Amino acid sequence: MKKILVIHGPNLQLLGQREPGVYGTVTLAQINAQLKKLAAKKKVRLTILQSNIEGALVDALGKSKGRFDGILINPAAYTHTSVAIRDAIAACGVPAIEVHLSNTHAREQFRHISLISPVARGTIMGFGPQSYYLGLEALIGILS
Amino acid sequence: MKKILVIHGPNLQLLGQREPGVYGTVTLAQINAQLKKLAAKKKVRLTILQSNIEGALVDALGKSKGRFDGILINPAAYTHTSVAIRDAIAACGVPAIEVHLSNTHAREQFRHISLISPVARGTIMGFGPQSYYLGLEALIGILS
Amino acid sequence: MKKILVIHGPNLQLLGQREPGVYGTVTLAQINAQLKKLAAKKKVRLTILQSNIEGALVDALGKSKGRFDGILINPAAYTHTSVAIRDAIAACGVPAIEVHLSNTHAREQFRHISLISPVARGTIMGFGPQSYYLGLEALIGILS
Amino acid sequence: MKKILVIHGPNLQLLGQREPGVYGTVTLAQINAQLKKLAAKKKVRLTILQSNIEGALVDALGKSKGRFDGILINPAAYTHTSVAIRDAIAACGVPAIEVHLSNTHAREQFRHISLISPVARGTIMGFGPQSYYLGLEALIGILS
Amino acid sequence: MKKILVIHGPNLQLLGQREPGVYGTVTLAQINAQLKKLAAKKKVRLTILQSNIEGALVDALGKSKGRFDGILINPAAYTHTSVAIRDAIAACGVPAIEVHLSNTHAREQFRHISLISPVARGTIMGFGPQSYYLGLEALIGILS
Amino acid sequence: MKKILVIHGPNLQLLGQREPGVYGTVTLAQINAQLKKLAAKKKVRLTILQSNIEGALVDALGKSKGRFDGILINPAAYTHTSVAIRDAIAACGVPAIEVHLSNTHAREQFRHISLISPVARGTIMGFGPQSYYLGLEALIGILS
Amino acid sequence: MKKILVIHGPNLQLLGQREPGVYGTVTLAQINAQLKKLAAKKKVRLTILQSNIEGALVDALGKSKGRFDGILINPAAYTHTSVAIRDAIAACGVPAIEVHLSNTHAREQFRHISLISPVARGTIMGFGPQSYYLGLEALIGILS
Amino acid sequence: MKKILVIHGPNLQLLGQREPGVYGTVTLAQINAQLKKLAAKKKVRLTILQSNIEGALVDALGKSKGRFDGILINPAAYTHTSVAIRDAIAACGVPAIEVHLSNTHAREQFRHISLISPVARGTIMGFGPQSYYLGLEALIGILS
Amino acid sequence: MKKILVIHGPNLQLLGQREPGVYGTVTLAQINAQLKKLAAKKKVRLTILQSNIEGALVDALGKSKGRFDGILINPAAYTHTSVAIRDAIAACGVPAIEVHLSNTHAREQFRHISLISPVARGTIMGFGPQSYYLGLEALIGILS
Amino acid sequence: MKKILVIHGPNLQLLGQREPGVYGTVTLAQINAQLKKLAAKKKVRLTILQSNIEGALVDALGKSKGRFDGILINPAAYTHTSVAIRDAIAACGVPAIEVHLSNTHAREQFRHISLISPVARGTIMGFGPQSYYLGLEALIGILS
Amino acid sequence: MKKILVIHGPNLQLLGQREPGVYGTVTLAQINAQLKKLAAKKKVRLTILQSNIEGALVDALGKSKGRFDGILINPAAYTHTSVAIRDAIAACGVPAIEVHLSNTHAREQFRHISLISPVARGTIMGFGPQSYYLGLEALIGILS
Amino acid sequence: MKKILVIHGPNLQLLGQREPGVYGTVTLAQINAQLKKLAAKKKVRLTILQSNIEGALVDALGKSKGRFDGILINPAAYTHTSVAIRDAIAACGVPAIEVHLSNTHAREQFRHISLISPVARGTIMGFGPQSYYLGLEALIGILS
Repeated sequence: MKKILVIHGPNLQLLGQREPGVYGTVTLAQINAQLKKLAAKKKVRLTILQSNIEGALVDALGKSKGRFDGILINPAAYTHTSVAIRDAIAACGVPAIEVHLSNTHAREQFRHISLISPVARGTIMGFGPQSYYLGLEALIGILS
Repeated sequence: MKKILVIHGPNLQLLGQREPGVYGTVTLAQINAQLKKLAAKKKVRLTILQSNIEGALVDALGKSKGRFDGILINPAAYTHTSVAIRDAIAACGVPAIEVHLSNTHAREQFRHISLISPVARGTIMGFGPQSYYLGLEALIGILS
Repeated sequence: MKKILVIHGPNLQLLGQREPGVYGTVTLAQINAQLKKLAAKKKVRLTILQSNIEGALVDALGKSKGRFDGILINPAAYTHTSVAIRDAIAACGVPAIEVHLSNTHAREQFRHISLISPVARGTIMGFGPQSYYLGLEALIGILS
Repeated sequence: MKKILVIHGPNLQLLGQREPGVYGTVTLAQINAQLKKLAAKKKVRLTILQSNIEGALVDALGKSKGRFDGILINPAAYTHTSVAIRDAIAACGVPAIEVHLSNTHAREQFRHISLISPVARGTIMGFGPQSYYLGLEALIGILS
Repeated sequence: MKKILVIHGPNLQLLGQREPGVYGTVTLAQINAQLKKLAAKKKVRLTILQSNIEGALVDALGKSKGRFDGILINPAAYTHTSVAIRDAIAACGVPAIEVHLSNTHAREQFRHISLISPVARGTIMGFGPQSYYLGLEALIGILS
Repeated sequence: MKKILVIHGPNLQLLGQREPGVYGTVTLAQINAQLKKLAAKKKVRLTILQSNIEGALVDALGKSKGRFDGILINPAAYTHTSVAIRDAIAACGVPAIEVHLSNTHAREQFRHISLISPVARGTIMGFGPQSYYLGLEALIGILS
Repeated sequence: MKKILVIHGPNLQLLGQREPGVYGTVTLAQINAQLKKLAAKKKVRLTILQSNIEGALVDALGKSKGRFDGILINPAAYTHTSVAIRDAIAACGVPAIEVHLSNTHAREQFRHISLISPVARGTIMGFGPQSYYLGLEALIGILS
Repeated sequence: MKKILVIHGPNLQLLGQREPGVYGTVTLAQINAQLKKLAAKKKVRLTILQSNIEGALVDALGKSKGRFDGILINPAAYTHTSVAIRDAIAACGVPAIEVHLSNTHAREQFRHISLISPVARGTIMGFGPQSYYLGLEALIGILS
Repeated sequence: MKKILVIHGPNLQLLGQREPGVYGTVTLAQINAQLKKLAAKKKVRLTILQSNIEGALVDALGKSKGRFDGILINPAAYTHTSVAIRDAIAACGVPAIEVHLSNTHAREQFRHISLISPVARGTIMGFGPQSYYLGLEALIGILS
Repeated sequence: MKKILVIHGPNLQLLGQREPGVYGTVTLAQINAQLKKLAAKKKVRLTILQSNIEGALVDALGKSKGRFDGILINPAAYTHTSVAIRDAIAACGVPAIEVHLSNTHAREQFRHISLISPVARGTIMGFGPQSYYLGLEALIGILS
Repeated sequence: MKKILVIHGPNLQLLGQREPGVYGTVTLAQINAQLKKLAAKKKVRLTILQSNIEGALVDALGKSKGRFDGILINPAAYTHTSVAIRDAIAACGVPAIEVHLSNTHAREQFRHISLISPVARGTIMGFGPQSYYLGLEALIGILS
Repeated sequence: MKKILVIHGPNLQLLGQREPGVYGTVTLAQINAQLKKLAAKKKVRLTILQSNIEGALVDALGKSKGRFDGILINPAAYTHTSVAIRDAIAACGVPAIEVHLSNTHAREQFRHISLISPVARGTIMGFGPQSYYLGLEALIGILS
């Protein structure tokens, strides 16, 4: 049974409350529930982590080697600023998929550059919560 | 029954032959066959177009309003240079999803910027042919 | 009797339908009718071309030498990306006037640069369909 | 009867003497005379101002609200450097049209950027004195 | 009794009328009245100047040495373009505080850079008229 | 009674010891004491937090919605690098005021850009500890 | 017998008429005749194509694999804007040589960058029609 | 007898008081006296103007044609920001020499660029008041 | 006996496993052991810290004043993004030496800039684990 | 009999040993021998110079006027950094052709810019030693 | 008796022959003769050096300390590229004046930046040979 | 016995005299003596070269292959401008270590970029003469 680490970056704990015009009204708990339902159906096991602390995400990524077969990560604000998360993904060697709720290319200029994309297998963005579900499906596709 | 326009941009007719290290060995015909199979299953109707001519893509997008409910587009090289395709997508008002076989952010600098992303509902890239299948699924999700 | 070539660039066939907030509700046929009416009054002969294909515009410009006395061109999206159209205007040697419906300087950053302006006699932008009528008048002024 | 404020920016008092290769031999007085003739014909009233002082132009623009129905402005050198004039146009709320004698995009790099265009209704440039006459016509078109 | 020079830059004479969405409905006269009230309370003497002319502001700053103990300046549009005002503040040696009604960093890119800030003691921006009152208070704090 | 969250960013625990030439000799404890004194006088309640951990600041901001009426934040070094804090301020929807002890525009080039300012109500900088006191006053002004 | 595809990009059909100061008075037909004469002497077979349409050039390049042993291309204006032609050259895997009549580095800034050079075996520019003849010779040298 | 216009730009009225570390202790009156002494010796007539108002300098330059044989100008802060003064020098056609008291290239980055130098016959900077005297000598050399 | 703080930044806990092609096969424990051996020989006392959390590194640096005589730091990914660590080093006033295992200038563009180097006494990079040993030696040299 | 100066820039004395993957295994002596053979056949006289010293190349170019009819130069590393060699070519007035063994546009970014190309008649690059032979042929073509 | 080192940079040996449109027809020997005449009159002793070799100029500058009281240098092409000459001037501590025959700001963009100016006492440019004579006079003024 | 080439770049012959605030008071002779002492102890043989001439350094590097086992180089000013030295190091294939006396990242912007670092094994900077001794030690470590 494949094991997948799901990582939610900074401010995602606020989903549903935070700028609903940009991010929608679905909560993180609802997304997690839906991800687990899909995982159960696809027979993969999920571990889910949310943290606002860049280093905590780096810690988790650093420990993923040998423990997880794949990573589904929404780096949120750290997408644009974190070399440490980029290095952690490259270092752990576990295939990672980057997802974003919003279409970052349709927002401010500084959100157009992703430090994470070059080390991700693929990127899915702009579909709201569905970005996660498509990402999980894509990851399972890669792992099988 | 929803109608979807699938657009393949320049050089995609060469898929399977072209730089397999970057683009894989699956041919465009095989991708189209698989897309049709998925469409049949999901009960949507596909129209598929490949052209190397920027203006031909603009033509097709211009006529899509009222004829199609959604667009799945791999703009390929025109991703980085075509304001005309960008304007055509914005002008037709039909929801469009941008897909790429390769992870364009892991390649040359000039491929990191997409003129299309800001007018696409979402973007999926880096999963090889699966990018198309995930994109179709995402588009059907949006249309329903 | 002076002969004038009117060129409409990509997506202008959609005028009236396309983003009316930006481009208004007048159609291209209405603009062409009005241009012809003005031409009749001013006793010049118009040939009108719309194409979404950059190379087709280059073809037409290339053939204009000796056939036309002046060119009225709305290069639309190709304004910002086409060295080929720029070169064609310079090559044909026929005086050309650049017009735009919208005020391109009040839109996205990449629309602030025109590759065409340096080879045009003059530029008129931001007046909606009136940009064309003023442009025709200006061109006739130059030719007489 | 519509009232229009015509503003000539710095160095335009020298027209006819100043670099005739670039600006032609028509004097500002001749342009003003021609503008008045056109205004009389179109039944609008003109007030004409020339100043080399940025702040004097700002003063005039600041007082235009309620006194004038439209503004025809050639900001000349201040086109490229004056945030104050830009703010004054935006602040007064009177529709303004920007005109230039020369084709600024065919000259030095620093003349390609206009701080004024984003707050103007439209821009006309490159037609010599005719830029003014076309601008007046365009402005009357907008006001009626 | 400390003497303070209050300088209002270009277009501020329009306050209350000018783009109320950005600048509010309070007039400059009301701000001046309130500043004087505060000054009376704090026992400092105010001299207030508004000019749209960059050089007039430079004149006033140049004469401030020995006549004033502090300067409260809203350079408005000249914030982003005037080396002359910057040099005048540095030259006069009188401590100056820069205030802005709006949050210039939340507006256009070219308003994010201040040529004045590096020579100001401090900057207060974004609080509407209260920026002035806080600035006066801050200046009095520095002078005592 | 209004509740205000005061956030001190990285290295501010060293105030009074750290580069006194730049930051002065007042300690953070003294600033906090003074802030509390002012709060008592103004009848608002303060909660004060200092952390060097970006994610801890994001956590606190994320929890501020509904618990606090306003935020007074000195993001210190994170001013220039933290999209996460910027997003947290925008996400929580609580009005925030940015303060800085030093005049960041008079220091190194990379300190001239603030990622925080565009989401702050206002910014006060360069007044040493007084920046905090003015900021608290400004915030109370906004809340009342 | 080696087969070589010769591609002339946009506006080259105008050679001899177009800006003779820059491009000389030799026509494309004359160049083609001379190329054929050289080919006959060197015992290689030429296929010659001129098109103003970027996509038509991409089409031809896409079909070159297996049909041609080498490509001699003057991409003209598309040199500076076409990722599609660059990708087509890389995709077909046929060795290609880039030629230019004029010395592009001695002209406008935007002509100094070639998107094609990085995928060409070599580049020859500035020798007028002789650029083609040298290029053909170089290509034959590579193929033998 | 040759007539020379000497123009002192903004803040130069403060010479001797203003930042003596940068600009020295000699006053503008002393420089003018010395310039007149030199002029008397060389038998040229000087007219001297100091203004802080950009437009006043433009006015003076605009009137110099036919009245003066040469111009000696220290544009001070306007060196780096004034297209209007640049245009005025080019427009009047009178040979102009640019002088600076300080070595502007050894100061802030924004002082390294001169908008005036490209239209000046020559530039002399860094010699304190002697820059003026050398400039006068150089101008007389050019005029004779 | 001199006390030295050794700081290992993010992802260094993975040494030996992480991309051995770039970072080698020596583990962090082995480096620490070797550092301690050297320290014992040189009679200095080491305290060693590894953390992936930027703020934890800032905490440690903030406490170093008075507790340590020197700092040996490999800021890893934070080298390129952390103003907070830079400020902490400057604030604590303890001499710090920056080391890197790899030659960061031979890697991606964004690794060529170090925010830390300007506040470090010196930098040693590219020697693998030997960078640390040389750095320790250099630091001891400075302290004695 | 035409006289041609052949100049080999820095590090070319190492040809055949130096990075054979980039520069091939042919030595400079072999290239020179082949150039002489071609020269004998074409009845031109060659003088060949190799130097690593920029100034020695400038010396040789400076003396070429009147002594040589044409110059064949591979400026190697100085291509990208030497204004002095550029000026020397322009100053001597002898027609010069620039050649490069490798395709500099397919290498590091800083090799994409040539300071020499704007003053060369033409450029040939990417053909290994054949670049020299084609260059000699091209030069003879120009001289006859 | 003051001793002055005069340094002529690369290509200046060609003066009088080299691009007379830019540099005039006076030879270097004539300039040197005139400089010596002026020196004799002013009772200073000149040593004159011309070299095309950057390092030779660095050598001469390096030896100037203690041997010369001032330096008059025309760095020519090295103005824009030589950090070594800049460092040599700063290192020797002898006051240096930079002169240029042409107005470098009116030429190509890359000639607008001088690496030498920041370490020169002053700069004189654009006066042809007179730049040297004014420079010598200025240097003598500084030394006395 | 390993042979090492030590190269001192431009202006280093002035060490001890040159800007002692930046470079200290130790002379180059003293550094060389200390390097030789260390070499004797470590049983390696040193050859030492100082030159101000870029091409002389290129010469020496070009001859190092087969004669030396390692290179210790302080490229000084050429660090930032010499592609030729970079190419020479890459071409000779001998492992090279780059050292700097000062911390170049704490100085002017243009000293932050090293053209040499990408081809060096490692870099040591900021330790004064100790940079050389550490570099020698590091080089010996690499060679054994």
